Amino acid sequence: MSDMTTRFADIVGAHNLLIGDAIPDDYSHDEELTHPPQKPAYLAKPSSAEEVARLLETAAANKVPVTARGSGTGLSGAAIPRADGLLISFERMNKVLEVDTVNQVAVVQPGVTLTELDAATADCGLRYMVHPGELSSSVGGNVGTNAGGMNAVKYGIARHNVVGLQAVLPTGEIIRTGGKIAKVSTGYDLTQLIVGSEGTLALATEVIVKLHPRLDHSATVLAPFADFDQVMAAVPIVVASGLGPYILEYIDNMTMAALVHTQNLELGIPDSVRDSCQAYLVVGLESRTADRLDEDVERAGELLAELGAADAYVLEGASARKLIEAREKAFWTAKAMGADDIIDTVVPRGAMPKFLAGARDLAGAAGGGAVGCGHAGDGNVHLAIFCKEPAARKKLMTDIFALAMELGGAISGEHGLGRAKTPYFLELEDPVNVDLMRRIKQSFDPAGILNPDVLFG
Amino acid sequence: MSDMTTRFADIVGAHNLLIGDAIPDDYSHDEELTHPPQKPAYLAKPSSAEEVARLLETAAANKVPVTARGSGTGLSGAAIPRADGLLISFERMNKVLEVDTVNQVAVVQPGVTLTELDAATADCGLRYMVHPGELSSSVGGNVGTNAGGMNAVKYGIARHNVVGLQAVLPTGEIIRTGGKIAKVSTGYDLTQLIVGSEGTLALATEVIVKLHPRLDHSATVLAPFADFDQVMAAVPIVVASGLGPYILEYIDNMTMAALVHTQNLELGIPDSVRDSCQAYLVVGLESRTADRLDEDVERAGELLAELGAADAYVLEGASARKLIEAREKAFWTAKAMGADDIIDTVVPRGAMPKFLAGARDLAGAAGGGAVGCGHAGDGNVHLAIFCKEPAARKKLMTDIFALAMELGGAISGEHGLGRAKTPYFLELEDPVNVDLMRRIKQSFDPAGILNPDVLFG
Ligand SMILES: Cc1cc2nc3c(=O)[nH]c(=O)nc-3n(C[C@H](O)[C@H](O)[C@H](O)COP(=O)(O)OP(=O)(O)OC[C@H]3O[C@@H](n4cnc5c(N)ncnc54)[C@H](O)[C@@H]3O)c2cc1C
Ligand SMILES: Cc1cc2nc3c(=O)[nH]c(=O)nc-3n(C[C@H](O)[C@H](O)[C@H](O)COP(=O)(O)OP(=O)(O)OC[C@H]3O[C@@H](n4cnc5c(N)ncnc54)[C@H](O)[C@@H]3O)c2cc1C
Repeated sequence: MSDMTTRFADIVGAHNLLIGDAIPDDYSHDEELTHPPQKPAYLAKPSSAEEVARLLETAAANKVPVTARGSGTGLSGAAIPRADGLLISFERMNKVLEVDTVNQVAVVQPGVTLTELDAATADCGLRYMVHPGELSSSVGGNVGTNAGGMNAVKYGIARHNVVGLQAVLPTGEIIRTGGKIAKVSTGYDLTQLIVGSEGTLALATEVIVKLHPRLDHSATVLAPFADFDQVMAAVPIVVASGLGPYILEYIDNMTMAALVHTQNLELGIPDSVRDSCQAYLVVGLESRTADRLDEDVERAGELLAELGAADAYVLEGASARKLIEAREKAFWTAKAMGADDIIDTVVPRGAMPKFLAGARDLAGAAGGGAVGCGHAGDGNVHLAIFCKEPAARKKLMTDIFALAMELGGAISGEHGLGRAKTPYFLELEDPVNVDLMRRIKQSFDPAGILNPDVLFG
Repeated sequence: MSDMTTRFADIVGAHNLLIGDAIPDDYSHDEELTHPPQKPAYLAKPSSAEEVARLLETAAANKVPVTARGSGTGLSGAAIPRADGLLISFERMNKVLEVDTVNQVAVVQPGVTLTELDAATADCGLRYMVHPGELSSSVGGNVGTNAGGMNAVKYGIARHNVVGLQAVLPTGEIIRTGGKIAKVSTGYDLTQLIVGSEGTLALATEVIVKLHPRLDHSATVLAPFADFDQVMAAVPIVVASGLGPYILEYIDNMTMAALVHTQNLELGIPDSVRDSCQAYLVVGLESRTADRLDEDVERAGELLAELGAADAYVLEGASARKLIEAREKAFWTAKAMGADDIIDTVVPRGAMPKFLAGARDLAGAAGGGAVGCGHAGDGNVHLAIFCKEPAARKKLMTDIFALAMELGGAISGEHGLGRAKTPYFLELEDPVNVDLMRRIKQSFDPAGILNPDVLFG
């Protein structure tokens, strides 16, 4: 056993420190499509903030690169470790420490999955509303990526729902930021700086998340549109309507066909409508009372018709659930269809038509394709990119990201940059911003041990 | 004319650079109660980001401390300049550059006041919902302090409503952060780091703010409670009720008496009720339709009665407006009553009863008093502190802040630390956090020119 192995094992206990072949393959990747798997030199499974602190202190003293891992469901390769590095898995730190109904927050360890947190809060009528498509993802991972998901259009992203942290700095110091409080103006907001930093600044060992009331009544309206641009033009109007949808997704016809096919969806849409429509809008509505929900659903139907929808289907119970689940699994469908890469670009809502038309033109010109769906309410476009040749694909992705930025958007709306998107970021972002971020990184991590391949390459 | 004067005048034009007696007294203070006014050596009124950049570059090269000033309505002394420093007033950068109804954002220069922005957005049915009590405050000042205000309980604070910035670094570089986008996971969130940094990291020269639909129907319910603790216990329940109040304030009886007296309020509350009540809850409700509003008001009345309110008065039109305005002016009333200092501590909503009882006990033991009101929905307690003797007052304030922190709260919920609260922060905050913030400060401001008396003393 090497010296480092002994030291790490002393901290977490011998059976919580794996090396070499003892490390299962799973720990060598997340769900990103293009990066080769990579096993770490060491896999540690700490059980407390103190253990994490000692791991980081030891790693920093010995310049061992460290990558944090939640559930490994990320889509940007941010949880892929270095070959010579330490991977810290938070799977053993998976307790819901407190569900505080008075302050409407939960205090959880980072390894808690969204499914577990949902179960722990079900009885009290509250819920953590960050809802990326993959519910096996962990709260710590949500902090790392600043996760979004379908409900963000109403409830915001991880950033808006994480109000406090306990975190370990790469120096081995443990800090607390924020708290069970709705707001604070007391020094720099360290919570917000750590959220979305993809494990490059500090590791969250406790997370305080907001909970919202579970509303009793919800419905899903599915509206096919003959014309793609009409869908995109409808989005800002639905957002501004006052209906307050908690889901507002678009799905293009190719993607819908694939979802229907791979997931056996029964949407009850006549073939004639389906064949003539270019895209769908999915509008989720919820309310405190059944009456108001009915009213809102009716109003939504009228509005969608005014905006050019061919029809508006109200999906009930199981069929609504199935559609939403299918949409959540769109990534698996894209993967099964052989997508070569995926993007989750964000643009101003109003710029979606231009962006989508541009992206498809670019893909076509490159001899490839770009199809998808997205959190339309947030201007967050998910595209599966089909383009086999790596150099051509790299150029295509660069061009698409450049277009998004030109339109006032950004490379990633919710998945983060990870190893996969960092090269594009470094090529396209203003170097003044990158340098500033690099200095911020140094102020947290002088030894540069935390996820060194992410953000700065 | 000194060399520095010439250089600054060359940048902004001679008549936009004032020195000595030519600088009006107004520029020597904000509205904080305890700090002596201080005139700067130079007052510059730039008209563009480029001018701000050149001012900062010149100041950095010559180690001239720089303080930014919006409207000077801050309550923490953060806009008080150094005697040898440069004060940059954004009063000439006061254009609403764009009201973008599709993306529901406005792009404004920092000197735009809230009154001006409200006027510019009135016609399109949208509104910037950050609403500190003083509408002459500027959007740039809101960015500086991370302003809150009454509507934060529903619409969030400045942090939640500022989605992008153009900002000048103290190195003279101009950056853009965020954009007209709902979310982003592309590197560190520089927008959120600059918001609330009280002019110590970078100066905002353009601000993109979210706009929300103006709802057509609103009402204000005023509920007197015999027992102070009941008011506090009612708050989390009203928040969780699903009624979604856009205002949820408490006012203690002493403060209400002073407001009624100084501002001629007619609340229509019988003397007997008034005399026997310890505090009031003010609940603002709004809705898309008159019917729903009526329903909600009725439900709120029932709920408040269940929670122990002596009664619930629905205030209409002018009398509602007057009450809200009076509440907004509570600071002036406190000042007129001879308050020696004010605090805007935030605690978990559920800890308000403990905090308020503790604060009043501490004030009593110090031979002083603590009365007030607050953004109860946010756990944000505003107290006027009466305690003449400076040393005793300093100890009292320290004890009150320490109590808030013990309960999981923070020194300031919305006013910021400024010159006034920085010493308490440095005394009470974990030194690891302060050191980290100091390193972040250095990563932005290596010469240490931006508001050096604020946050780090
Ligand atoms: C089918 C599918 C659908 C998806 N849909 C969405 C979606 O709609 N929206 C969305 O945003 N994402 C989506 N994702 C991506 C993914 O679920 C989220 O990014 C999630 O937040 C990742 O959580 P995780 O626990 O798996 O994190 P991991 O993949 O393990 O790690 C993600 C990042 O967080 C860091 N990290 C992990 N733990 C910590 C910690 N304790 N402290 C600091 N950093 C830490 C890691 O280092 C890494 O940088 C989807 C993924 C799949 C497979
Ligand atoms: C009667 C009254 C009621 C109030 N009620 C509330 C309330 O309910 N909630 C609340 O939050 N506040 C309240 N305030 C405080 C005040 O209105 C807010 O803090 C407001 O945000 C200050 O804006 P300003 O333009 O006056 O800023 P200033 O006082 O001029 O400056 C405040 C801070 O912002 C910095 N700053 C100014 N411009 C910029 C810029 N362009 N870039 C970077 N930094 C900048 C300054 O350096 C300083 O640190 C109240 C004040 C009064 C007098």
